[in-house]
Parts: sequence; structure tokens; C-alpha cells
Amino acid sequence: MIKAGIVGGTGYTGVELLRLLAAHPDVELSVITSRGEKGVQVSQMFPNLRGRVELAFVEPDDAVLKGCDVVFFATPNGTAMKSVPALLEAGVKVIDLAADFRLRDAAEWEAWYGMPHVCPDLLREAVYGLPEVNRELIRSARLAANPGCYPTAVQLGFLPLLEAGIVDSQSLIADVKSGVSGAGRKAEVGILLCEAGDNFKAYNVPAHRHLPEIRQGLTAVVGTPVELVFTPHLVPMIRGIHATLYATLKNSDVDLQALFEQRYASEPFVDVLPEKSHPETRSVRGSNQCRLAVHRPHNGKTVVVLSVIDNLVKGAAGQAVQNMNLMFGLPENAGLEGIALLP
Amino acid sequence: MIKAGIVGGTGYTGVELLRLLAAHPDVELSVITSRGEKGVQVSQMFPNLRGRVELAFVEPDDAVLKGCDVVFFATPNGTAMKSVPALLEAGVKVIDLAADFRLRDAAEWEAWYGMPHVCPDLLREAVYGLPEVNRELIRSARLAANPGCYPTAVQLGFLPLLEAGIVDSQSLIADVKSGVSGAGRKAEVGILLCEAGDNFKAYNVPAHRHLPEIRQGLTAVVGTPVELVFTPHLVPMIRGIHATLYATLKNSDVDLQALFEQRYASEPFVDVLPEKSHPETRSVRGSNQCRLAVHRPHNGKTVVVLSVIDNLVKGAAGQAVQNMNLMFGLPENAGLEGIALLP
Amino acid sequence: MIKAGIVGGTGYTGVELLRLLAAHPDVELSVITSRGEKGVQVSQMFPNLRGRVELAFVEPDDAVLKGCDVVFFATPNGTAMKSVPALLEAGVKVIDLAADFRLRDAAEWEAWYGMPHVCPDLLREAVYGLPEVNRELIRSARLAANPGCYPTAVQLGFLPLLEAGIVDSQSLIADVKSGVSGAGRKAEVGILLCEAGDNFKAYNVPAHRHLPEIRQGLTAVVGTPVELVFTPHLVPMIRGIHATLYATLKNSDVDLQALFEQRYASEPFVDVLPEKSHPETRSVRGSNQCRLAVHRPHNGKTVVVLSVIDNLVKGAAGQAVQNMNLMFGLPENAGLEGIALLP
Amino acid sequence: MIKAGIVGGTGYTGVELLRLLAAHPDVELSVITSRGEKGVQVSQMFPNLRGRVELAFVEPDDAVLKGCDVVFFATPNGTAMKSVPALLEAGVKVIDLAADFRLRDAAEWEAWYGMPHVCPDLLREAVYGLPEVNRELIRSARLAANPGCYPTAVQLGFLPLLEAGIVDSQSLIADVKSGVSGAGRKAEVGILLCEAGDNFKAYNVPAHRHLPEIRQGLTAVVGTPVELVFTPHLVPMIRGIHATLYATLKNSDVDLQALFEQRYASEPFVDVLPEKSHPETRSVRGSNQCRLAVHRPHNGKTVVVLSVIDNLVKGAAGQAVQNMNLMFGLPENAGLEGIALLP
Repeated sequence: MIKAGIVGGTGYTGVELLRLLAAHPDVELSVITSRGEKGVQVSQMFPNLRGRVELAFVEPDDAVLKGCDVVFFATPNGTAMKSVPALLEAGVKVIDLAADFRLRDAAEWEAWYGMPHVCPDLLREAVYGLPEVNRELIRSARLAANPGCYPTAVQLGFLPLLEAGIVDSQSLIADVKSGVSGAGRKAEVGILLCEAGDNFKAYNVPAHRHLPEIRQGLTAVVGTPVELVFTPHLVPMIRGIHATLYATLKNSDVDLQALFEQRYASEPFVDVLPEKSHPETRSVRGSNQCRLAVHRPHNGKTVVVLSVIDNLVKGAAGQAVQNMNLMFGLPENAGLEGIALLP
Repeated sequence: MIKAGIVGGTGYTGVELLRLLAAHPDVELSVITSRGEKGVQVSQMFPNLRGRVELAFVEPDDAVLKGCDVVFFATPNGTAMKSVPALLEAGVKVIDLAADFRLRDAAEWEAWYGMPHVCPDLLREAVYGLPEVNRELIRSARLAANPGCYPTAVQLGFLPLLEAGIVDSQSLIADVKSGVSGAGRKAEVGILLCEAGDNFKAYNVPAHRHLPEIRQGLTAVVGTPVELVFTPHLVPMIRGIHATLYATLKNSDVDLQALFEQRYASEPFVDVLPEKSHPETRSVRGSNQCRLAVHRPHNGKTVVVLSVIDNLVKGAAGQAVQNMNLMFGLPENAGLEGIALLP
Repeated sequence: MIKAGIVGGTGYTGVELLRLLAAHPDVELSVITSRGEKGVQVSQMFPNLRGRVELAFVEPDDAVLKGCDVVFFATPNGTAMKSVPALLEAGVKVIDLAADFRLRDAAEWEAWYGMPHVCPDLLREAVYGLPEVNRELIRSARLAANPGCYPTAVQLGFLPLLEAGIVDSQSLIADVKSGVSGAGRKAEVGILLCEAGDNFKAYNVPAHRHLPEIRQGLTAVVGTPVELVFTPHLVPMIRGIHATLYATLKNSDVDLQALFEQRYASEPFVDVLPEKSHPETRSVRGSNQCRLAVHRPHNGKTVVVLSVIDNLVKGAAGQAVQNMNLMFGLPENAGLEGIALLP
Repeated sequence: MIKAGIVGGTGYTGVELLRLLAAHPDVELSVITSRGEKGVQVSQMFPNLRGRVELAFVEPDDAVLKGCDVVFFATPNGTAMKSVPALLEAGVKVIDLAADFRLRDAAEWEAWYGMPHVCPDLLREAVYGLPEVNRELIRSARLAANPGCYPTAVQLGFLPLLEAGIVDSQSLIADVKSGVSGAGRKAEVGILLCEAGDNFKAYNVPAHRHLPEIRQGLTAVVGTPVELVFTPHLVPMIRGIHATLYATLKNSDVDLQALFEQRYASEPFVDVLPEKSHPETRSVRGSNQCRLAVHRPHNGKTVVVLSVIDNLVKGAAGQAVQNMNLMFGLPENAGLEGIALLP
């Protein structure tokens, strides 16, 4: 059994990680830390875990964490980087669900996250944990940077087009919509039911931290810098991301459906729907699937890709478990076979 | 492997049964019927099942169903009773998720359901499938009448009080609230998002078909007829039932918390919360648990019991699988270990 | 024009009061205070008011408030009592939407609200602002204690029964359900969309501050202390309260429908629905109506009353305007004619 | 008083029209027709109208309608065109809230709506009722074609850019999101709370009937045919449309904020928010406002316009009343001063 630790398990990615790891056949939950909730039973905070997770939150303590085989960080940005070097040195594998190791360029990271990076050297070593792109690198990684939720949905949607070189990489548009759990479990007025419920709005249109992450990933595919407009919106629902992606075809003689189906034919967690489909976020609620559809309205020059994930699963905790499975040589779908809850 | 058939799998209890059975370690999904959707892939109607259920709907056909070990009816009331006698004769076990076999008195059934019962003799044989009451009878049953969703939540809440004889059985009140999936997957105006959303109302206050079912169950416990006021409400959410139960104590010297904990100590799917708790429906979303809390406000004469279930799981498909497990000698929790999805 | 001031207008009762007063034909909004938002345009915080309310929040200042004809307090409990004596002395009429003047007994108030009352003498003078009970007293009041949201819905439902003396006053049950806006506009985890959405639960079953307020009001009607069990629940919707009320008939020979219709025949804001009706909260969304239905299931001994209001209107800001209208000799429905928004 | 008739008032645009007209100072509701609900009190179907609308539905009857000054059609597409010629001949003004008169080209109309047009000559006479474009024509119109909900939000957002000629008219993208009431009050499975709730999806990406309407309107502004990709999505909320619009700047030297503010400076129902704003649909819930914000992310070549309306008000019934006000020489905002309901 793999001994797993979780740092900062009081948020939504934390409880989702607990749900998945508690049912994982090869994992033993060893320790979960939270400075604020020290001593509290995990199942008191998250009653869905009653009878399934017996741990209580403990004070973060590197000595204890060093006894784990793998440590997941489900912490605010800027936290993991303080502990990761020591854990790696102790032979512990690390999967960071926050943004600390997602960007390779330390200066860019510091500009977007507004703080100095304390271990910029590890930015080069960290593997960006998108298995559909970096599977082999992840298998041998000590440190995986788990992708953001929007970046997962957006990159999986654009990848086939950009890899095939059939769209203009200078006019990409990602119009993305997220359920409110993407904002985390924080006492903030803007995400109250009475503020976010029965309402729809865009936010952070001038700038969003997921933009450089997506740009980095897509640029790596194309080889030259891509141009992307990225517009996030808040949907009055709990889980789910829907990315609506627009790209301009360079030529018109391409079978888009076949392209997508072939690209993802052997991917366990990417499902290309039949032509003319519209994936629904609920079709992946609680599951690690990404479902895609590709359209070319009126046979014009614009490709429209629809991409849905559960932001807490394929967009966070599920992808983290997928990365762990790869890093430990387990079947990639171990513990990730749950079927989406519909309705 | 147990060969399972589902009759009428296009509703919410149908898709939930498919979700549970597709992941059940001892079951092979054999056949699923729907007159209206003949030929349609199940996963086309319910995309959460893509890659997990390869069946297509077929025309109902007794010959095919007779090849199953167990047949589940997820049909409108009045449908199962037409096929059940022949299936039983052929040695098939049957679990009816509708109401055809829930009442033991044929006249009462006919009065509430407005049609003649075609096999009233089977009403005596059918076992009411509430394992917390009838576990041993279910083990040897050929025909299980799966309880209604409200009756499950209400009976589990009242049972300890009535079994102990400490409350007046003539002034019971069940104020119950259900998510909209309890109304089924039907094209009806009243359950549109724009009608049932951001809204709350009672319905069927003059009379609801679950009243005689609850009364029958509680009367069996007490030994004499109980009096119950039953008030259902519609909650703008998808899954979940919350029963708020009121009973008048006959004497004041009783440890209610201990009573409830002892009654359900060995029950795998009933969880008594600590004193002063308030169970939330989301704590059981997608799981087969019933969570209970018992209160005595201001130490007065009224006991208030709070009982939550997922109406589609413990209130329907999950309980049906629990009954199947019992009827086939499997571990009672086989295929029912999924943790509730929260948030 | 009546010059109106609002103290503490950053919550939901504040913005609702602004919406109603901005459209009131006889009122001029004079001043609105908020310590925390000093200098901020009201319409920046509440964009629905853009173009309709030009005020900015100012620091609370008794001198400015004394220039008003009426001051509304939409503040946390314990705030109004500090300023009210001076305002009354200056000849300003006061309507408190918080709880400071709702209970007549200072000791009881202090026990439930956990602080000393600074002007207990005013508790006797304050008029409880439920026009359906105290209309004449309100007309001549200097200080109106605006009722709580639950107490409004519950009292209006029980009043006809208790005034007529036909039910047992020692076994009343109020099972009440509220939209989340009843909890206010506060940065608290429990009322996030991801916590309160797609979920249902009871809360504060052991004790809720609206219990003594209801008990006081009903006791005044009956003449001797009533016994009431009061169970609040949180509904995943924004506005609306639904009270489901249970009482035991002392004799069975009574025309409940006629009783209710006669009691409220001349009330502008209480609407008794026809027999067998189920009022919906959305039918009063944004309006000052209370809609009632009375049932006697199976012609038994229990009366079930269903009572709905919009907690922010008839349960708060609308009733406050109704009280103001009475206190200033205006038509009772001035500014309160808005039709509920449905869907 | 203007005598107004409504044909087909049982849907959401019908009840919204009733809400607005019942409170309109210059209108007398004369007649409302519905074949299916003949004899039913309007307020029985829509209880928010109890005490405010005393009419019952009557059988459609041209003789009765000819006694009106204005008749609104809130009917399915293809219904109004059958009655309009006779009504116009009788001197009645007509406002059609459906699509019968929105397209000027009969062949295009027939291709998109799948039926022959019975009075194609009237397509030339009908005035497209978008006051921000056609105010003077509407004043003298006999027949107004009330715009679709999406077309209203999209055109108001693109107009300033296209009129100024500063964006490429061949690569417009409209990514639009609608609350479920846009689908109408129909018994359809896809818009049940349990299907559309807690879910997000695109629909009709290959083709949507509002595309030709938008294209016609924008082409009229530009003078040459525009190219537009139009992607509609369904949001789990009741009311509201949010259009996210993308256009490519032809040159970079333009003050977008000033452009938008000047264009709409004197419009009573278009509100341009300050720079860097994100309009919320709830800020217009129940009101006739359109709120706009214009962005240019990272000072790049793409303009992003955010446009919100209430689909039932500015996107349907409110705009119809605005058109009526213009056609009858009333103040344009008569009966349309209601403030949006927030929260």
C-alpha cells in the first residue's frame, strides 16, 4: 500500500482527494494536515466521509510527512514550494494541486502570483501533470505540477488542432465557464448562494492566472508562441467546467471528427463524442472523464470545440490520482472508475 | 455472475440502477427494456454511462427476461404486476421499485392506485424490502417490494421510538421534503427548472400514496393502527429527501441518543449522528446511507427526528441492490460502497 | 416628501429597502450609512440600483440622521438600540428591522441575544410592527419593531386558529423553511453556493431566536402561554419562506376555510387561497404578499396551515415600508404594489 | 387608456407581459386568449397575478381582438401571421413577440422556420422593434416584429463597434448563454430541473434560428454581409442572457469605453458600465435594462463585449411594451420603471 499524505485538506480539492483516496485499492491514507482545524475529525467537517475516513487533521509537520510515499498539496498558492525541497530530498514524491510548479519561467510565475518563488530550480524539474501530453515524463517524475482546472479543459480541446497544425495559432479564443466550486471553499461574499445563484457573469476578463499556464502548454505544442483570448465565467452550479473553444482553420480540407477520435483513441479519460454532440458537464460529475465534441458551424472557417470536465476531478483531485498512479506504476485508472452521477 | 435484467430503464431510478449495477462486482447486466426507446444505446440517453454500459434498450420480452437471475422493475405503477407471476414461475427473482407489491391489502392498493390488482395473491408473498426491518425475510424472498423513498426515510426515523413504545402512536407528524428527481423523468410542466427552481411548496397535502405505505409499516411495528399526518414538499434540488418527524413522548425519562445508536449499531446503511446534529441531504448524495439525528427541543414533550437519504439510492435503486445482495447471499454492501459526492 | 434615512444598508434587507423606497411616491432617500463602505456609491455595490439611487454610503452620524423624518435600521442586532433614544428625542420616527425592540421582556431579550439591552424602557413603548395585529398602535407609534421573517409567516398562519380558540395552544408545531437570503449577506462558509446549493438541512433545532418572538405574539393572542416547537430549515433558493404549521383541533365542527377568509378579508397583504391549494414561495417573490392555505388532511384532528412570504419583503423591508406608511398616514400599500416576479 | 389584447398568454413571455401591462399606467388589459386554457382564470395559472389581473382566458376570436387598440402575440412561431393581416386592416396595431415578422426575406424565413409564410408582403412593412436602431420607424409602425432575446443582447453589444467601422465584420463571434426560461413553458424533458439544473451545456451549435436574425441586423448596419459564429448555451438559472462577444480590431487607436458611452448616452434602457466591469444577469432581473461592458484584454487585437439582459423583459415582454409606448406616443419608459430584483 502506498502511504499518502495530504497537506491542507479542508478545501474542495482536499475533500475530493479524500473521497478518491479512501476508495483507492492501493493507497493508505496516512496523514492529513490543517493548521486551522488541528484535532478535528475529517468526517466532522465532511460528513460524507463518516465511516470511511477515520483521520483527524494534524498540524503540518515535515517529519510526519517524510514518512509518506507521496504527499499531495491541496494548499493555497505559495505554500507547497516551502516544503517540497525537503520532502523530495527525503525521497517522498510530491503532487502539487496548486500553482507553485506549473510555470517553467520563474519570472513569469512571480509576476502572475505576486511573490518570489523560493525554489525556482525545481520549476525545471517539475513535470506538468497532464498525462495526455506528458505521460512518460510523469512516470519517472519526483514532482508533478497538477494542471489547473481551466487549463486541463482548454488544452485537451485545442491539442488535436494545434498538433495537426491546421489552425491559426495567433487567434485562439477560449470562452470558459466554471461551476462555483472552482473558487474554493472560502468565506467570500461573491460566492454566496445569494450572490452567485440564479446569476451568470464573466470575471477576470482583463487577466486570469490560468492564461499563462495555457499559453505555455499550447506554445510547447506549436513550437512558437500562441495568442489566446481567455474569458472565464461563473455558472450557478457546483461542479463542472465547460470550455467553448474557437480557432480559425488554415485550410478547409480536414476531417475534424476523425482527427479528434484518433488523437484520443487510447486515452482512458478523454471521450470524443459523435458528430453534432453537445457534452454536458453533468455527464462527468464526480468522474475523471473529459468529454469533447468538435463542430464546424455552416462549414465555415471557424472550428468550435466543446470540452467538459469536473473541475474537482479531472481538473484537480482525479488528475492528481491519475498522476500518482503513473508515478507509482499502478494501472492508470486505479481508483478512478467511478461513474458520473446523473442526474 | 448474477444475470440482471431491468424493465423500464429510462427514468431516474433506471439510470441509477444502471450506474450501481455496472460497477457491481457480482452482476452482469443482461438486458434492459423500454418500449419507447427500443434500439437506442443506453449510453446515448445517459452519457455518464458511455464506455461503461454497452447495452441498447430492447422491446420488453418475457422470454428474454426469463433468462435472467433477477429482474428489476423500474416501471410506472401497475406494470410489474402484469409480468411478475410468469417470471416467478420461471424461477426468476424479482425486485419491484414501483408500488405494485408494497401494500398487503389489495382493496387498499386498488383504492390508492385507482386500478384493479392483477395478482393480489402475490401481495401476501411479497416481502417489503426494508432490510432494517425485514432482513431475514428478504434473504429468502422471491419477490421484494422495494419501499418508496419517503417511506424509507420516515420509517427509519420513527422505528426506534415506536419499537421502544415511548411515543404516542396517534399523533405522529412527518413533514417531508424531496428533491425534484423524486417526481421522475417525465415531461411535465410542474417540474421544469423554471417552475420548481428557486421555489418551495407543499404538494398533495390532502392525500399522498406514500401515506398508506408508511402507516402499514409503522402499524406493523406498534401492533395497532398508528395515526400519521404526512406533508410532502418539493425542494429546488435534484436528489435528496429530508424527513422532519415529530412525536409526543409518553414519559420523559429516556435517553433518545442511546436508543437510536443502539437500534442501528449494526446497520451498514444507517448512521446516527452525534447529539445536536443536523444531517444534510448532500452528505448522502449518491450513496446508500440514511443519516439520522434525534432532538428534544427545550427538553419538552416533543421528539424531533431528522432523517436524510438520497431518494434515488437508499430511496430506490441502492435499496434495490441491497435487497438483491440479501436475496442472493452476497455481502450486503457489495456494489454499494460509493462515498457521497460532496460538494 | 418624507425624508428617509437608512442605517446599515449593505445587507440584503438594506438593498431591498432601497429598491422599495427608491420607487416610493412619497419618499425621498436622504442618507444611507455604512461604516465599512463609506464613500462607495450604493449603485456600485448593488448594480440593480444604477440610475435609480445616486447616494453614496456615509459614516453613521446622528446629526445627519436627526434631519430625517424616519430612520430605518437594517443593522446587526444590538446596534439600533444605541442610537434610537436620541433619534426619538429629536422627533425622528424609527423602524428597526433588527431584533432590538421585538421582545417586551428585557431579561428574555438579554438571554437570547447575549448582551445587555441599553434602553429597556423603550421595549414597552415600541410597537411590534405586524399590521395585521397592531395596525392602530402602529399608526401612532414613534418606534416600530419590525417583525422577524419567520415570526411574520408563522403568526399570520396561526392567528385565525388561536383567535377563534379552536386549537390546542399547548402543542403547536411550526416546521419552517427559508431561502438563504434569510441568513444575510455575510462572508460565511455555510451559505456558500457550494455548501447550501443542491442541499437541504434543518438548523438550530435546539434553539432559534425567533422562537420567543413567536411565542410572545401568540401568547398575547391567546392570553395564556402557548407551547410551540419551531424547526427551521435552509432551502437552496434565494428568497422565500414557507411555514408548514400544525395544530390540534379542540372540536371538529368548524369551517376552516371560511374562518381564514373572514379573518383576512380586508387585509391588503394577506391572501387566502381557495381550498386544497398549495401556495408557492415564488408567487410572492419580490412582493409584500403573504399567501395562506388551510388544510385538514383526511378530516382528522390536525389542521395544517401553509404560509408563504418573501422573507426580504413581507418578512423585512416591505413590512417596514408598510409600517412607515401607517406611521405617516399614507395609503398602506403606497410603494408596495409591485407584482411578484414569476418565473 | 389603451385597450390591449394578448394572444397566447400561457407561456413565460405571456405572464411577463401581463405583469408589466397590469401595472402600466396607460393600459387596460382587455382580453387574453388561449385555446387550451379557455375559461381558466389567468391568476389561477399564475398566482403572482392574484388580485391584480381578473381576466380569464378566452377562445381566440378575431372579432374581439379587433376591439383592441393593440394586440400582442405571445404565440408559437407561425401563429401570428395568420391573424395579423385582418387585425391591421381593422386598424389594430400589432406587436409580435414571436419570429413571424423578424426576417425581411421570405425565402430565408421559410428555410429557417420550415413552413410557408402566409403574408410575405407584410415582411417588408413590419418594423424590427429594436428601438436603439429603429426608434423613429417604430413610432409610426402598424406592425412591430419584437426581436429575439439573443439578437437583442448580441446586436446591442456589437452595434457601436460596427457602426464605427473599427472591427472586422467577417470574424465576429457571439458566445451566448441563456437562462432556461428562454426555452419557454413547455413540457419537455430537456428543461426539467433534474436535466438542466446543476449542469451546463451548449446546444444547437450547428444552427440556431437567431443566427439569421442577428446577421440581418448587423448586415444592415455594416452595409455588406457580416460573418458570425453564434454558440448558444443553457445556464442553470431561470432568467437572464449573457452574451460574450468577440471582434477583431482593424486598428488599435480607439477609445472603446468612450465609443460605447457616447453611442448609448441618451438610451433609457442601455447602461454602459465603467471600464473593467463585468455585468451580472441578476442586475437586470425583472427589468428592461441592457447592461454592457467593453474590454480589450492585454491591449490586444480582440475586443470583448459583455452584454446582459433579462430575456423575458428587454429580450421579450419589456421590449414589446417599449415598442408599444413608442407606437402610441407614450413616454418610452412608461410601465418599465421596475428596478431589478437583487438578490
